[in-house]
Parts: sequence; structure tokens; C-alpha cells
Amino acid sequence: MTSIEKEQTYCLVTSCADRVGIVAAVTKFVAERNGSLIESNHHTNHDSGWFFMRNVIDAETLEMSIDELREQFLPLAEQYDMEWYIRDSRQMQKVVIFVSHASHCLADLLYRWHSDELNCEIPCVISNHENLRSSVEWYGIPFHYVEVTKQNKPQAFAKMTEIVSGYDAETLVLARYMQIVPPDLCDKFRGHLINIHHSFLPSFVGANPYQKAYERGVKLIGATSHYVTDELDEGPIIEQDVIRVSHSCNKEDLVRLGKDVERSVLSRALRYHLEDRVIVHGNKTVVFN
Amino acid sequence: MTSIEKEQTYCLVTSCADRVGIVAAVTKFVAERNGSLIESNHHTNHDSGWFFMRNVIDAETLEMSIDELREQFLPLAEQYDMEWYIRDSRQMQKVVIFVSHASHCLADLLYRWHSDELNCEIPCVISNHENLRSSVEWYGIPFHYVEVTKQNKPQAFAKMTEIVSGYDAETLVLARYMQIVPPDLCDKFRGHLINIHHSFLPSFVGANPYQKAYERGVKLIGATSHYVTDELDEGPIIEQDVIRVSHSCNKEDLVRLGKDVERSVLSRALRYHLEDRVIVHGNKTVVFN
Amino acid sequence: MTSIEKEQTYCLVTSCADRVGIVAAVTKFVAERNGSLIESNHHTNHDSGWFFMRNVIDAETLEMSIDELREQFLPLAEQYDMEWYIRDSRQMQKVVIFVSHASHCLADLLYRWHSDELNCEIPCVISNHENLRSSVEWYGIPFHYVEVTKQNKPQAFAKMTEIVSGYDAETLVLARYMQIVPPDLCDKFRGHLINIHHSFLPSFVGANPYQKAYERGVKLIGATSHYVTDELDEGPIIEQDVIRVSHSCNKEDLVRLGKDVERSVLSRALRYHLEDRVIVHGNKTVVFN
Amino acid sequence: MTSIEKEQTYCLVTSCADRVGIVAAVTKFVAERNGSLIESNHHTNHDSGWFFMRNVIDAETLEMSIDELREQFLPLAEQYDMEWYIRDSRQMQKVVIFVSHASHCLADLLYRWHSDELNCEIPCVISNHENLRSSVEWYGIPFHYVEVTKQNKPQAFAKMTEIVSGYDAETLVLARYMQIVPPDLCDKFRGHLINIHHSFLPSFVGANPYQKAYERGVKLIGATSHYVTDELDEGPIIEQDVIRVSHSCNKEDLVRLGKDVERSVLSRALRYHLEDRVIVHGNKTVVFN
Repeated sequence: MTSIEKEQTYCLVTSCADRVGIVAAVTKFVAERNGSLIESNHHTNHDSGWFFMRNVIDAETLEMSIDELREQFLPLAEQYDMEWYIRDSRQMQKVVIFVSHASHCLADLLYRWHSDELNCEIPCVISNHENLRSSVEWYGIPFHYVEVTKQNKPQAFAKMTEIVSGYDAETLVLARYMQIVPPDLCDKFRGHLINIHHSFLPSFVGANPYQKAYERGVKLIGATSHYVTDELDEGPIIEQDVIRVSHSCNKEDLVRLGKDVERSVLSRALRYHLEDRVIVHGNKTVVFN
Repeated sequence: MTSIEKEQTYCLVTSCADRVGIVAAVTKFVAERNGSLIESNHHTNHDSGWFFMRNVIDAETLEMSIDELREQFLPLAEQYDMEWYIRDSRQMQKVVIFVSHASHCLADLLYRWHSDELNCEIPCVISNHENLRSSVEWYGIPFHYVEVTKQNKPQAFAKMTEIVSGYDAETLVLARYMQIVPPDLCDKFRGHLINIHHSFLPSFVGANPYQKAYERGVKLIGATSHYVTDELDEGPIIEQDVIRVSHSCNKEDLVRLGKDVERSVLSRALRYHLEDRVIVHGNKTVVFN
Repeated sequence: MTSIEKEQTYCLVTSCADRVGIVAAVTKFVAERNGSLIESNHHTNHDSGWFFMRNVIDAETLEMSIDELREQFLPLAEQYDMEWYIRDSRQMQKVVIFVSHASHCLADLLYRWHSDELNCEIPCVISNHENLRSSVEWYGIPFHYVEVTKQNKPQAFAKMTEIVSGYDAETLVLARYMQIVPPDLCDKFRGHLINIHHSFLPSFVGANPYQKAYERGVKLIGATSHYVTDELDEGPIIEQDVIRVSHSCNKEDLVRLGKDVERSVLSRALRYHLEDRVIVHGNKTVVFN
Repeated sequence: MTSIEKEQTYCLVTSCADRVGIVAAVTKFVAERNGSLIESNHHTNHDSGWFFMRNVIDAETLEMSIDELREQFLPLAEQYDMEWYIRDSRQMQKVVIFVSHASHCLADLLYRWHSDELNCEIPCVISNHENLRSSVEWYGIPFHYVEVTKQNKPQAFAKMTEIVSGYDAETLVLARYMQIVPPDLCDKFRGHLINIHHSFLPSFVGANPYQKAYERGVKLIGATSHYVTDELDEGPIIEQDVIRVSHSCNKEDLVRLGKDVERSVLSRALRYHLEDRVIVHGNKTVVFN
């Protein structure tokens, strides 16, 4: 795990069917171009026979542009039938945050972004409430209020999609946005739409997980960050964590304690995503952290 | 949390509807008899309006037998309509352990019992396999093999119930005993039949939780110790814990890592139970630890 | 553990030499005045023979002012030679935060305070840097810049003490304030001056703990919140926590990961302090959480 | 992390000064021999400029003996000036366990070894007490009693060294062996002599760490497994962990809770060591887990 590099790096992420020689082929490709590896991870899932790799290359040591690098990598990628991409660390992802009334996840993400812990741009925040406007605008980030009612849901999401497109956003984060996102938006941002659910999934899917946890009498409560898919709370899990509770906690205590877990889980998940540490494989993730 | 007292203590455990003055009444009762409190906990659940209390009294400071103490406590108990009991720490509970093929929970319990971490007698171990006989008998504990097949289940459980009754056992522990216990045994040992389930309940109820956890791609796996009721894996939870896993863990890794969680959760739950730290309330527990 | 009560409560905190009947005496005192206990904890340290108790009483159920309550409690307190106080939950402590350049602990405390997680007033923040002014003033809290140099240290601390006195502050928090506080201020705020040290004490006392942790190759890093005394990093510990690190973490990673531990440890410690959950005993603490 | 492979594997572990192309060179070497990588990790410490790599190769996919493999690897190793070794997973390390009176770490190691969690032979256990003989012999492992007194220490250690040599042991484990090992034995088994210290080092070096922890009032206690060097408790740390304690724990509680941490930390450390996951670098370790 390496903190955000301020130097320019190229991150090469690839996955394909496993074969003998694949690590050698990719690392040889980099070495022949004199690329210095800052961080490099790979993993083979022996059940599925699938291979995953992430290489962070010091851009200065390569004597070529990222486009040239991509062009030169193409034959190798085709040979192994890879899914792949190369990202320039200086081309930060644009991340739009959706939020409702609760501030804890949003406040945490904005603070970390401001402290350079999250290598992204946040072109705007979208909310169906007005209460968090000033805390967003303090950071110089535009705040868009889009009312959502039972009646206007399709129009509201059409408007939000328009806003998101206007900013050319690559990733959406649902920072306790209490509305179900329509399937077309899920599809459009497949693998780029991150949610935080306030339970240790698959326990307590859906609404009111703290109430359900309280009623069940669990001794730990948790939070789960996952990519959103059409099925509610069923997408690939990126990160989870828990905190101990006891009989002496009432429901309000669970909510209060859970907030800390939610915000740390979401911020870790987003950081992994932004640093290209997460590769989705079926309904699961490989996370090189 | 105090380790097993070697001195003799009386543990007074009580619960009732909450009222002003109840702590005062109980502690005054003890103080008037010159009883020195070694440990004392109480809790009120403000949702249900129910009060819970556990007092560990130095037996030497009381100038009476436990029976006299019980007799003298009776009027107070009736006044407040309490559920209550007083246990002498030297009258250890008899705990029968049920086990199948897997040894890890059994081995841990026997080791801790042998090391005086568990204040109980273990009059025997019952198993539907023979493989753990010698490791049980090494401790000088009788090992009973009772075969269980699809055909003989009622007879097998009748036989086991007979064995348990013969030892006058108060508590049963299912230390990864892979058979569903019949309802009449559940009823007979209500609040005294402890199971370890190899998942973080309510996730992955029923069979093969590690397989399910692997397929879901969770980032933590867990274990849950609970009192057994008629409903599978739905009884009051005593203790839970989790351990972090990653994409690099295959199913066998989950099993291996999970074993450590199972055994520590079960041994903690049993210790809490034996030290009279657990009070069942509806389908939940108060655990004074 | 109960979240901050919005209803008015009186918190009675007491400690004294242990004696038979002390719990009965205190709870009887409360019950005779019809006081309803919302939360009640007590503990006896059998090594030192010292008794500690915290009672949270629903103020509405008592038909008297807090001053009358104090007056009526006095004879009992004298009888048992108690140290004691009674606090009204509506009379919030005034907490002045000292901060240097690093923002993470301050930002966390201000956010939690704003979210009603910390039951206090924050009359001002004092810093020897200007960089955090706007983030403090956004909350409507005055920000005082007091320059500290090698030459002006006594004068600077005199000025800060004056500011603190002007606000009638009861508690000081050093939220990564990188100056050693002079002994007279330590004495004046004995038991009310809270520091966060960025290591798992007693490891890595003094400056640059992350550097030292990196050099020693520890596998967990931590943070410690403690009351400040004359001896550097030797005061009574209120709360500690750790996070796992590995060989792949460089020093910057330790700093980044540690920040999360620091802020959660400090905010928990301050919450315990504000809710009167902490009793100092010698160089240790009893924390009823 | 992969559990112990029952199939035959060769584990190639290497470290050297970092250079461009080194991952490519090693993985190409393996791939050219048709070796299938089961697990592969590498790491560069950018501060020291040092490179570390561990490759687990399916032995069946290589059409050569381990000696041929070593011979063929030699030129590459020399080219990069590597420290390296290749181990056959079927050539299990011989591990001699030293123990005093306390059984918890020993019992845990023997149980795990018996359960195939530790890929080693245990040719014997050596103790300066007799009390654990029968629990060792139950596993069919020879138990050697070697008395150690103030007077006979050199002779006693000479005798123990002789026993160890007689078994051709590669690794020694001090499973709460309460004697300081003489420097020549430390040197002889440098990087192969593993200790468990019952504190979170560097806190509480030396004797009676639980007593010291109790006196300091820490809120977490821990354990540390490390390679032994001449300097007491200063060797490279392999693994650490902690557990939460509170004011209600007396010293005996710390001891009891700590035992669980000690045994899990030691068993993890030994497993990492046996699976060639640990590389010592200066006074620190790289642990590929």
C-alpha cells in the first residue's frame, strides 16, 4: 500500500485467462521500455483460472507518452485476450457524490479529498435536500439540489444524469443517498457507481438495517461498500468493516457507532477505486491493497 | 471482567420490570447481610422497561448457607416479581459437549477447561464419529459414540438424551455438531444449549456458510455463538466475532481462518454462560462481560 | 453506552475507599428522592481497595434543583469520605482546542461537535499557525492565533492561559498541538487537559513516533489519548487503538493510516470525558463506557 | 494467502538491490521452464532500494529436479547478486520447540501441527520443566527435560544444542521459554529462532510485561513474535496483535486474555516462517501474507 504518489505514474491494470508466462510477458514489456515499477501486484484465482495484475510505473522512466504506451501494449493485450487499461495518475477521475440528509459520509469524503488523500476531482455534489449546501460550497464545490418525489423520480434522475454528463464524471458515489438508482444509470456506470450500505452485507439488506440489527441482537454492526448493480445490495463488495456493540447500546447508539464504520469503509473503498486497486470479477472483487 | 474466582462466591442473577429503587433494594439486601460485592452489574433496557442485574458476592462475608440466602431473598424477589437464581461458584455446572468430526472447537474447550479457564465439569463428550475419542480420553473424560443416520435419528437422540440425563448435565454445547437437534431437546435445555455457527449471523444461515461467504465475496468472515431454539440459527446471540479475508483466500483459507474465530467465539460464549454473565431477554441477550 | 441524552440528566460521579453497603447507600439515596437511573456503573479495584461509581439520573424524576441535590448528598459523601461531583447535562463543559498545523483531529472534533456527538461548547480554538482559521470560523467559532517561538514561549502561554480564562474553559484539548505545555497549565487543568499522542504508548514516547515505528518495523501502529501531566506522555491513559500496517507501508503511509486512528481515539476520549465516564485513579483511569 | 498445498511446490525466495527488469527476469526464468506460478509476490523498499520476491511454483509443471532448478537459477542469481534459496514443500523444516511451564503456546502449536496447519516436522520438545511431558508425548513427539539453573546454564544450553543438532533441526521456537538464549545459539540460528514476547513491543521489554501493562493502565495488551538476536526483545518483528482490556481487568485477567493473543501471534508467525513468507531485511521483516 503506497500513499498517493505526487510524481506522475502510469497504472496498467489487466486481467485475462491465466497462462504460464503472463507475468513475465507483462513485466518484460515494461522493463524493455526501461519502466521502473513503483508497485506491482498480481493474483490468480485458481478456481476460475483467471489472472489479475496491477502495475504502477514511474512515468519519468518511460520515454514515451501514455498514448504511445497504450499503442505498444496493444499486441500483447490481444495475444492474451486481456481486459486492460492504462491510467495517468495526473488525469484524475471526476467523482460526483450523491447525498441525502445525513452528512457523515459526505463530510468525511470532502475532508479527505481536501487533504489530498483521494486522488480525484469532485466537480459537484448532488442532493435531494438543501441542508448540506454550505458545507459543500465551503470547499468551492458546486452543490446541485434535485428534488426527488414519488411522482418525479424518472425526471429527477434524468436531470441528475444530465448534470453528471455535463461534468463528464467517471465515477458516482452514493454517500448515504437514500434513493434507489434506476437500472439505466446502474448500467451506464457499471463498476463506477459506489454505494455504502449501513450493514455487514449480506445481513440486513434493504431499509433500516440498524433497526434490524438492534432487533436481532447482533454483537457487531458493520458497513459495506459495493459497486451498485440492478439487484439491491447485491453488487460486488469492495470493502467491509464492523464495530463491537453490546446490550447496553440502544438503536441511537448503533446509528452513532455505525456512522464511523460507514465513513471509514466508504472512504477506503473509494480510495482503492481511485488508485485502480479494484478489479471486478463476476460478482466479486480483487482488491490490491 | 474478572477471571474465575478460586474463592467461593455466590452469584445472584435477577431480572424484572424496572422500577425506581430496585438497585438499592437488592444491594441493601446484600449489604445488610454484610455481603461483600466482588463484581456487580446492572442494566435497564429502556425500550422494554426491563431490568437486569448480576452480583458476585464473596461467600465468606455472608454468615449463612446458600439455602438460607435464597430463602431470605424470596420475599424481595416476590415483591418485584423477579426471575432470579443464586449459584454457588463451587457447584460447577455439568457441561456435555456434542461434536462431529471437526476437532478445533472441542480441542479448544478441553484445553481451556484443563487450564481452569472454564469453571465447569465436563462429564462426557458425545460424538457421531469415533475419530476424537483418544484426544478426549487423554483428559480422563468419557467419550460416547452415538451413531446418527437418516433412519435412526429419533432413537439416536433419545439415547443421547438418556446419556445426558444420566450425568445430570445442565448445559449442552454443540461444538460443531453437524446434526439438527430435535425440538424437545431444544426445549428441555432452553437457555442451556449453546451452538457455534460458522458465519456472522444472520448472514449465511444453514449449511456451508464458508462456501456461501466465498461466493458472495465478503471481506470479513465470522462466527456466532447462540442459544439454540426451534428455529435454525435464529436463537439469542451470545457472542460474535470476525476476521479479515481477501480475494487471495480460497475456500480452504476461509475454513482455516474461520476455525480460529469459531473456537474463540465459542469459548468466550461458554465462559460468559458459566460465569452467569448471560441473561436471555426475548430473543436477545444481556451479557455482563 | 448511551448516546447523548437530550433530556436533562444529573450525573453523580463518586469514588472512595470501598466498604460494604456503599452501592446500597448511594442508590438508596437516589431512590428515596424518586430518582430514575438512566445508566449506572460501579467498579471496585480490589488491589487498591478503591470504589468508583457513576450514576445518570433523569432530572425530571427528582423534585429538586441540582443545588438541593448536592446539599442533600453532602452528608453521605462525608460519611464515606468521597470525592464526588454532580453535573447537570445541560451545563455543558467549555472546551478549548489547541491545534498546530495538522487539521485531522481538529476537523473531526468540530464535525462531531456540530453533529451533536460531543456534549460541550467550544468557545474558541487556539493555534500557533493561521492555516486552519477559515475551517474553524465556518463553524462560527472564534480562532485565536498565538505565535510560539523559542524566545516567546512563556509569554505565549501566558497569553493563551489568559484567553482560556476569559472563556471560563473547563477542559483543554491538545488536538496535535506540537508544543509542550508548561507545568503550571498542566497543574491548573489537572484531569482536564487531554492530549492525543500518535503512538501506542508507552512505545515511542516523544517526537516522531511514526518515524520510530517505521524504523522498528512494528506490524501495528497506534494512538493514545491521555490526560497531560508534568511528565511527557506519561499521564493517565483514557483510550488507545491500533491499525495494522505491513512492510509495504512507507513512512507516509504510516502517517496517513495513523491519522484515522488518532482522530477516532481522541474523539472517543473526549466523549468519555464530557459524559463524565472517566475517573482518574493514581496514574490510571476507570472508564465507564 | 493460500493454505498449505498438498501438491509439491518449489518456493523460490530472493532479495537483491532493485533494478529495472528484475521481476521480468525471474518470472521469465520460471516461464521458460514451463513453471506454473501458484502464488507470487514481490516488493521494493524504495527507501533502501532493496527488492524482495517469493514465487511458489507447481513442481509438476517443471520437468526437472529441484537441484537442476537451483543449478539453472545460479547464473541469474549471480547476475543480480541475489540472496536466494529454493525450497521443496515436501522437505519440511524440522522445528524444535522450547517451553517452560506455561502450556498455552505449546498446546496451540502442537494442535495446529497435528491438524496440518503447520507444514513442518517437530522432532522433539525441550523443556526445563516436566509438567508438559504427557501432553507432548500424546502426539508421539519426544520430550527432553533439560534442567536449567543459575549454576548450570552453559552446560544446559550445550546439552540442548546437542539435542537440537542431533535432530538436524533448522528452526527453533521459544514457546514461552523463560530463559535467555546464549549468543552463540542466537547466531547459529539467526533468522531461524522465533520467540513470542507477551507484550506489544517495543512496549514492556523484558520481564513481567503484564505487570507493567497493568501498572501503566494501557487499554490494549499485545504480543509480539520476532526473530531472536543478541539484544533482548530487539530482533526483527514477524507478527503482532492486541486485545482490548479495561479498568475492570485485574492482572490475572490480562494474563488470561493475553494468552490467546500470544498463541495466535506465535502460530501465525511460525506459519509465515514455514511457508517462506518472511524475509529479514536489516532489523525488519518483509512478510508476504
